[in-house]
Amino acid sequence: MNAIDLIRRRRDGQVHSRAEFDLLCTGARDASIPDYQLSAWLMAAYLRPLTESETADLTLAMAESGTRIPMEGLPRPWLDKHSTGGVGDKMTLLLGPIFAACGLTTVKLSGRGLGITGGTIDKLESIPGFQTQLTRDALRDQANRIGFALGAQTQDLAPADRVLYALRDVTATVESIPLITASILSKKIAGGCDHLLLDVKFGRGAFMPTIEDARQLASSLRKVGTAARLRVRTLVTDMDEPLGAAIGNALEVAEARALLENPSSATARGQRLLALAEILASEALELTGQNEANARAQVKQVLASGAAAAKFHEWVAAQGGDLARLPEATHQTDILANASGTVTDIDPAQLARAVVALGGGRMTKADFIRPEVGAIVHVSLNDRVTPGDRLLTIHSAAPINNLAPWRAAITIAESAVAPERPLWTVVED
Amino acid sequence: MNAIDLIRRRRDGQVHSRAEFDLLCTGARDASIPDYQLSAWLMAAYLRPLTESETADLTLAMAESGTRIPMEGLPRPWLDKHSTGGVGDKMTLLLGPIFAACGLTTVKLSGRGLGITGGTIDKLESIPGFQTQLTRDALRDQANRIGFALGAQTQDLAPADRVLYALRDVTATVESIPLITASILSKKIAGGCDHLLLDVKFGRGAFMPTIEDARQLASSLRKVGTAARLRVRTLVTDMDEPLGAAIGNALEVAEARALLENPSSATARGQRLLALAEILASEALELTGQNEANARAQVKQVLASGAAAAKFHEWVAAQGGDLARLPEATHQTDILANASGTVTDIDPAQLARAVVALGGGRMTKADFIRPEVGAIVHVSLNDRVTPGDRLLTIHSAAPINNLAPWRAAITIAESAVAPERPLWTVVED
Repeated sequence: MNAIDLIRRRRDGQVHSRAEFDLLCTGARDASIPDYQLSAWLMAAYLRPLTESETADLTLAMAESGTRIPMEGLPRPWLDKHSTGGVGDKMTLLLGPIFAACGLTTVKLSGRGLGITGGTIDKLESIPGFQTQLTRDALRDQANRIGFALGAQTQDLAPADRVLYALRDVTATVESIPLITASILSKKIAGGCDHLLLDVKFGRGAFMPTIEDARQLASSLRKVGTAARLRVRTLVTDMDEPLGAAIGNALEVAEARALLENPSSATARGQRLLALAEILASEALELTGQNEANARAQVKQVLASGAAAAKFHEWVAAQGGDLARLPEATHQTDILANASGTVTDIDPAQLARAVVALGGGRMTKADFIRPEVGAIVHVSLNDRVTPGDRLLTIHSAAPINNLAPWRAAITIAESAVAPERPLWTVVED
Repeated sequence: MNAIDLIRRRRDGQVHSRAEFDLLCTGARDASIPDYQLSAWLMAAYLRPLTESETADLTLAMAESGTRIPMEGLPRPWLDKHSTGGVGDKMTLLLGPIFAACGLTTVKLSGRGLGITGGTIDKLESIPGFQTQLTRDALRDQANRIGFALGAQTQDLAPADRVLYALRDVTATVESIPLITASILSKKIAGGCDHLLLDVKFGRGAFMPTIEDARQLASSLRKVGTAARLRVRTLVTDMDEPLGAAIGNALEVAEARALLENPSSATARGQRLLALAEILASEALELTGQNEANARAQVKQVLASGAAAAKFHEWVAAQGGDLARLPEATHQTDILANASGTVTDIDPAQLARAVVALGGGRMTKADFIRPEVGAIVHVSLNDRVTPGDRLLTIHSAAPINNLAPWRAAITIAESAVAPERPLWTVVED
């Protein structure tokens, strides 16, 4: 079996063995299979999709192409969570401390943002002093001590996935459910968890535009994750409006901190974000063996008691972060309603593009990020507003000359009411 | 439109415009589209095949990616012929001189052999002094003077095809009728012809194993060639036994020479080869406007009068070849029948592999060829043989120790008779 045979078998829709996926992944990692053969295989796999069992084999082959984080000896259960990414998605900053406060152990490896989707590493690096380049030993020791550690993904984490993902990005082979599934799960397995909570987002601010697409990916992640010997729970959650109020790196850190410190003072947008955090945390506890009532009660308790907030501070301090020096933008500009009506749309993609244009995100991997810029959304869907009410506050490094892109993100209609959307659904089929 | 858009459109089965094929071909030629994107496009095109009209556009885009041989000013009609290649296929050595003797003008660019398929350039280079590296001006001047010139394909002949073909070879995307069609026709169009005779071979010694595959390719070549403004005639011809008696470079040159010089003394195998040559030449003349009876008569006449033989010598001399010094093998070994019976099979692939093993062909592009080695087949299908009759003569550079591969190529059965196969069929659907 050589690379050409491997491509031919995929091309003809024949089923690959685990050994064939090992050949592919070793070849990708070592460059012993050149890019042009990998990309021919990827297109064949796009048009002749992998079965669930093949996707599980590819996942394991990718996970084992690099070094796994050894979790043995750490307090159990080991849990990880993954979100497919969205606008204003600071969920990891909430859930890591909540999980730790509930007695779970989490070592999380996160990525950077690209395009309209923010990255957890970028958010944390807005905190002066916060270290994300931790060794495996440092991550492990910190997780053992306080229950939570978070580092940037390293080159030796599922390196075959890194190579294949970079190629998919430039060969129009990204949008394949089996390939997306293997890419997500391989990094989680290499990261060492045995329980995995997956948050698949849908809507204009997410990778999956429709709930049907998101359900399909969620179902694939659940089945393949289970076949790869993980305990998996999968939710599809709404990303057709921003999550919480803040969009932008330092602004999101501040929002997460404030919600953990004062959950009872949350605004309507903050309450919606906290509600999702509570659901996700409860599902995670249920996944690790608790019953639903106990799980919900424990999550509410660690929030109300301040235990989760204490974990947040313990964690940020353990990684060297100084929240007192969180950067603030030099300019703040309010966008006010100029008519009466009902808020019928808050477009997350439009807002995210405007924040990226301020320097708050990357269009290419080489772009520099301004940590302090972004926006705060003050209104919620179906809020009644009158002229002069604050809709948004823009945080920027220079005066804002053109308000049009910001105004375009929020629709105010005279009488229409935005349809109700479910915030979350557990996917079990 | 960039390379990723191009790949995505092919992936999704959308129809490419001529401008999109120009983008692809310019990108392939200049390496402005990297190999990994070209190979993703190739796999998408394999699994989402090009339409006939798209294939014609790709053909023209590939032909125009390099320099075309300008035929203007040369005596018309300009004709080229192409064979998909086989074992013992020395047809160009016969047809070039026959065409020229019939008043057609042919500038032919040929390739080298690889695997079991021989290449015309290798055959001609077995003649001491024969020059195949001719400039375009030299080819053109010679064709103007004597009606026929033959050179090796150069780097600037349809360079986009050269790049794409090399990638197809290593990405399991060779066996695509539209891609094969565009590859063949683009080089012919760049070579300058306006009439094209296509000989699509099928059988164990050919690229297409079955007559159905060959018919499909022939039909595609005819339709796409016509759409690309060529006058095309297409035949499918049998390649389930060697063509003629000789396999091996110098041996095939000697066989072609002998058949042209003494067509009436041909053996049964030689007669079969000459019959095919006459059909192909007559079809070519009909394609350029003659009626069938005149075409057949003219071909017979140039063979019988020695005009074709004279053109053969004029041509070889014009390119510097010295037939008196054609190399001969130091060892000749006869394979004799060891039982009585009927010859029911002469396996061309088995014979060709044995000749390649002697050094008469290449397994990789870097292999050196021994021009003098090969084999002569003495028997025809359904011949009756008795023990001691000569089946084959092997021409080699060293004594032959193992006769088994040679014996395995010829099947002698006690009473069975090999089924009749049509030597040729014109494809017009």
